[in-house]
Amino acid sequence: MIIVLKPGATDDQIAHVIDRVESLGLRAHLSRGTYRTIVGVIGDEAQLQAAPLEAIPGVAQVVPILPPFKLASNEAHPEPSVVEVAGVKIGGGYLAMIAGPCAVEGAERMDAIAGAVKKAGANLLRGGAFKPRTSPYAYQGMGEEGLKILRETGDKHGLPIVTEVMDPRRVELVYRYTDMFQIGARNMQNFNLLTEVGQTRKPVLLKRGMSATIKDLLMSAEYILSEGNSSVVLCERGIKSFDNSTRNLFDVAAVPVCKGLSHLPIIVDPSHATGRPDLIPPCALAGVAAGADGVHIEVHNCPEEALSDGPQALLPHQYAALADQIQSLAALLGKTISVPPERKLAAR
Amino acid sequence: MIIVLKPGATDDQIAHVIDRVESLGLRAHLSRGTYRTIVGVIGDEAQLQAAPLEAIPGVAQVVPILPPFKLASNEAHPEPSVVEVAGVKIGGGYLAMIAGPCAVEGAERMDAIAGAVKKAGANLLRGGAFKPRTSPYAYQGMGEEGLKILRETGDKHGLPIVTEVMDPRRVELVYRYTDMFQIGARNMQNFNLLTEVGQTRKPVLLKRGMSATIKDLLMSAEYILSEGNSSVVLCERGIKSFDNSTRNLFDVAAVPVCKGLSHLPIIVDPSHATGRPDLIPPCALAGVAAGADGVHIEVHNCPEEALSDGPQALLPHQYAALADQIQSLAALLGKTISVPPERKLAAR
Amino acid sequence: MIIVLKPGATDDQIAHVIDRVESLGLRAHLSRGTYRTIVGVIGDEAQLQAAPLEAIPGVAQVVPILPPFKLASNEAHPEPSVVEVAGVKIGGGYLAMIAGPCAVEGAERMDAIAGAVKKAGANLLRGGAFKPRTSPYAYQGMGEEGLKILRETGDKHGLPIVTEVMDPRRVELVYRYTDMFQIGARNMQNFNLLTEVGQTRKPVLLKRGMSATIKDLLMSAEYILSEGNSSVVLCERGIKSFDNSTRNLFDVAAVPVCKGLSHLPIIVDPSHATGRPDLIPPCALAGVAAGADGVHIEVHNCPEEALSDGPQALLPHQYAALADQIQSLAALLGKTISVPPERKLAAR
Amino acid sequence: MIIVLKPGATDDQIAHVIDRVESLGLRAHLSRGTYRTIVGVIGDEAQLQAAPLEAIPGVAQVVPILPPFKLASNEAHPEPSVVEVAGVKIGGGYLAMIAGPCAVEGAERMDAIAGAVKKAGANLLRGGAFKPRTSPYAYQGMGEEGLKILRETGDKHGLPIVTEVMDPRRVELVYRYTDMFQIGARNMQNFNLLTEVGQTRKPVLLKRGMSATIKDLLMSAEYILSEGNSSVVLCERGIKSFDNSTRNLFDVAAVPVCKGLSHLPIIVDPSHATGRPDLIPPCALAGVAAGADGVHIEVHNCPEEALSDGPQALLPHQYAALADQIQSLAALLGKTISVPPERKLAAR
Repeated sequence: MIIVLKPGATDDQIAHVIDRVESLGLRAHLSRGTYRTIVGVIGDEAQLQAAPLEAIPGVAQVVPILPPFKLASNEAHPEPSVVEVAGVKIGGGYLAMIAGPCAVEGAERMDAIAGAVKKAGANLLRGGAFKPRTSPYAYQGMGEEGLKILRETGDKHGLPIVTEVMDPRRVELVYRYTDMFQIGARNMQNFNLLTEVGQTRKPVLLKRGMSATIKDLLMSAEYILSEGNSSVVLCERGIKSFDNSTRNLFDVAAVPVCKGLSHLPIIVDPSHATGRPDLIPPCALAGVAAGADGVHIEVHNCPEEALSDGPQALLPHQYAALADQIQSLAALLGKTISVPPERKLAAR
Repeated sequence: MIIVLKPGATDDQIAHVIDRVESLGLRAHLSRGTYRTIVGVIGDEAQLQAAPLEAIPGVAQVVPILPPFKLASNEAHPEPSVVEVAGVKIGGGYLAMIAGPCAVEGAERMDAIAGAVKKAGANLLRGGAFKPRTSPYAYQGMGEEGLKILRETGDKHGLPIVTEVMDPRRVELVYRYTDMFQIGARNMQNFNLLTEVGQTRKPVLLKRGMSATIKDLLMSAEYILSEGNSSVVLCERGIKSFDNSTRNLFDVAAVPVCKGLSHLPIIVDPSHATGRPDLIPPCALAGVAAGADGVHIEVHNCPEEALSDGPQALLPHQYAALADQIQSLAALLGKTISVPPERKLAAR
Repeated sequence: MIIVLKPGATDDQIAHVIDRVESLGLRAHLSRGTYRTIVGVIGDEAQLQAAPLEAIPGVAQVVPILPPFKLASNEAHPEPSVVEVAGVKIGGGYLAMIAGPCAVEGAERMDAIAGAVKKAGANLLRGGAFKPRTSPYAYQGMGEEGLKILRETGDKHGLPIVTEVMDPRRVELVYRYTDMFQIGARNMQNFNLLTEVGQTRKPVLLKRGMSATIKDLLMSAEYILSEGNSSVVLCERGIKSFDNSTRNLFDVAAVPVCKGLSHLPIIVDPSHATGRPDLIPPCALAGVAAGADGVHIEVHNCPEEALSDGPQALLPHQYAALADQIQSLAALLGKTISVPPERKLAAR
Repeated sequence: MIIVLKPGATDDQIAHVIDRVESLGLRAHLSRGTYRTIVGVIGDEAQLQAAPLEAIPGVAQVVPILPPFKLASNEAHPEPSVVEVAGVKIGGGYLAMIAGPCAVEGAERMDAIAGAVKKAGANLLRGGAFKPRTSPYAYQGMGEEGLKILRETGDKHGLPIVTEVMDPRRVELVYRYTDMFQIGARNMQNFNLLTEVGQTRKPVLLKRGMSATIKDLLMSAEYILSEGNSSVVLCERGIKSFDNSTRNLFDVAAVPVCKGLSHLPIIVDPSHATGRPDLIPPCALAGVAAGADGVHIEVHNCPEEALSDGPQALLPHQYAALADQIQSLAALLGKTISVPPERKLAAR
């Protein structure tokens, strides 16, 4: 950490800054330049990051040098992590193909969609039972009944399942059904929820918030990791921007940026990132080409009847065509799509 | 609602769109232009807003005409609402002066700060007992002990209190101590939490999320209102932007934009909006000049020792100087600063 | 175009709106809904887009239905355009491989870089003679001397050249040397400059402004097209965002969004979009996978000595490795990389 | 400037960094921390800011400590500058009241508007003769004829004038008519244009670009100042944001942020910042309360007939009401509104 002093900082102020640094057990290193005086801090700066040094009179700017996350950092863990979801590998060369409807709407529809995406090559089934909706008047999900349907459908088709948990009070309930928790974008900084799923040992799919920087995302992963759960998969799903051509802005560079900072796998979700079915295939391929460890795509067999987010779903035959293209691209890049183990998955 | 069809939409597709509209009990009104065909929808469009009309083949664009919120709208409630917090009025010409430290750090410090802000003219006391922190390694708040201190300090100085609740499991606990709930920016779309505070009858200070549009903010207010709690005060506290000169971007126009759409009071929080003490006074005055119903300011008597957000707090004498300026401006604008009633406030 | 009236609009106001529409030679179509009255406009709405209808009392909102650009639109020109730059094709299945240093810095360096990128598979050579620099104290380019060097180097290596023009007064000068004009991001809305290059018949590489929507970009292309120059290639090069992990935010979805609206080719520039050499290869591949008609990459043989933007350049061997990957991906996607014709290119 | 090295930087790499710094005539100061090695640079870092140090192998990050602008900085010039426009003072306690139509549309209309705004208290008259329009099909301005009308109208009403120049080829022409140049937001980084107006000795109103940081704005001012023209007034006019409730996002904090960095006056333009007449008065007052040195407001006597930007203009009586409020606020803040000298202004 580097502390830059204001042009007119007094000797007393400088001495006070050095005192504060040393009182935290660190060494301070004074350097008087022609135009500015700076204090370099030697030692573990983590504790300093919490101290309000900018509030000290005479301080102009505090420049952190080390990243604020540790367990998520690839300095601590240089090899890419491989996260396993009921036998399906994600990361380190393995590609997740997550597909399914936005919301679980009933057993029959779920069965039809699961059969179609399995056939097309998906290796994980998604579906929401609890839905975060902007409007209190919109469809809020089937609740536990939806979890049951999702579990049974996944088992029938040999697909591990992933589903969203929104409320710390429901982590236990969702835990009983799912193979992987999803933390949605709106809850990326719901710290109590992160702590709860961090205390389980189920994998977590952590979606990037709509205005979260990459560092914010990795700090949220750190909440889960620091509770002892090391199975975290990140997900880029679009951020806010000024152009309303698309629902969000798909930040494909987030994939290599994350890989430069962290060992955690990162997948892309072009359905939420763009909100437009015509943009899902090109953005899915872009994500894989940029190095993503998987793609998360919404598929529905009758989008105009979908109870949530119909307009951004692919039809099953569109998904099958895209999955073919992803497989070709994966082969070119030397990536493997992990096949779910051939057994009943329910024994957890 | 207006449904715009694609250039080559077929007659069958158009008929199907009309069927869908009519099946929802609404009237459809076809209009064939030279370049485009449009379908106007007559009736209550609320139910249509949830239907995925954009997913119907042949549909190019769906343009909503009515706002998606109702109870928050000033069409339903043309007069500005006045929210009362233990006798202190906010809105409709009454200005809230909310001040206090970011976090409750101990009884002595709280007492000193409360005494100072009360003397300067504050009419509500703030302090966090549960802190949402980006890092799992940062100070997380005193918990219930902090609530007790805040309650006792408020009572001693005759100031109603406001404090953040982050977790639906703690709404009941916080309810027992506070006069007003605060929902923080990161929880603006924590819908289960909104529902919980909506089921109480305590006023709620709802902060705008960092990437929330004004409509998103009003939809979140709608969650609270639709549960029967009509005492909601909005708060503009800065949004994300590309310029890192300031911590967030203070969107002062949010004040008149909200007032054009909603009857709910709206205050400004220049502390979080800017993150820099030198910018708090000009931005606080800007907010009041733009019509805000109050200002929310962090005050600390030793920012460099603050356990949270020290660098953005004013010192007590800086707050006093600013409060003077706000009072002059309020007088010019014909606004009143409600004085807390002279009685022990604890009897709730 | 649809004109939505305010809830309390009077009959006089409605009649006035209809008058205005009809006075412009269009037909108005009144529709009174339960909650709102709307006026649909039938006919060519282009002239209406310029009329300030929102300023008419009683009008709440004006919703355009048709895109504001015509010549750039794929409604007018459904087939993708192929732009030819001195024999090198871009668009319609042909991929541009534009490479070279940010600035022309001297004949020897230019020669070395051009030789390397030609060998790696580039088919167009770039280099700036006039540099738009944020600081007046930064290197501003070699001027005409730089143009001469670029021309000679391109001819020697059989590579057509592209170079930026910043000033309408220099369009004639740059015209004499270059095969393709580049309009930089900062000049995307320098309308006089667009008009000048529109009056030539040389191809134009039009870069998206840092805060331009896709519609803004297409409107700027329309300026060039409407002067009679139909050879426009668009370029996504990163937009402003709140995350400073990267210099700009690479909007890869801009590629399919543009293709959904326009027949013009669009390429990507991951050098400027990210500002980090480690991110250039993944983002270049992402762009091609998303359907881009080419990639524009800065290459320098000694980045630390570069007079402009050194930190974002690839070394020649890094470019060669990336070009190999792009060629494999292009083959998978069925794209062709046009080879410059084997002749002296100077005869223009 | 501080150069942070990568974790595994070799001794050779470190030595090379130090060599580079010393070869530029500066002193390097090595500091080996527990986790990172840093090199502090002592001396004038301006030349280093242009050197691509980040491109040197082993370098992780380069952190500038000094601002990149000098003449615009308040370190060089601690007192606020007062800019005089034909006798009207701006800055240092003097408030500019700039008003007039978006475009000059004819002598009669201009005369009516000028008379009204003069009466209301405006001290500078604006009007565009050359209009930067997003669409090539929109009204482009009256050209020289418009300049004449503006000049004559200003002289008749005793109001100095300000008008936009968009093209370096027209600086001479506009110079002959105007009292102050305006550089529009889209041309804030049209560096050749900045250089041209910098070479005159007429005051310049420099509008902030829609995606320009405050530092970018000050760097553009530096272009003008470094050519010898010290009469620059900055203008905040809204930046890009994700919320389309308003045309742009009015960044009122830009006013105190600029004042913390620079001695140049800064005014606000709520007309362009919001694009909505109902938001102009609250945002104008907010700007003045935040310390702005003036307000720039579009006024038109028949917005629905305006040839450009009608929907964002105030009517003359609305402007008069707002001007009254601004005057009261200015009196409260101790600001003066400079009165144009009582003489024919044409003698320049």
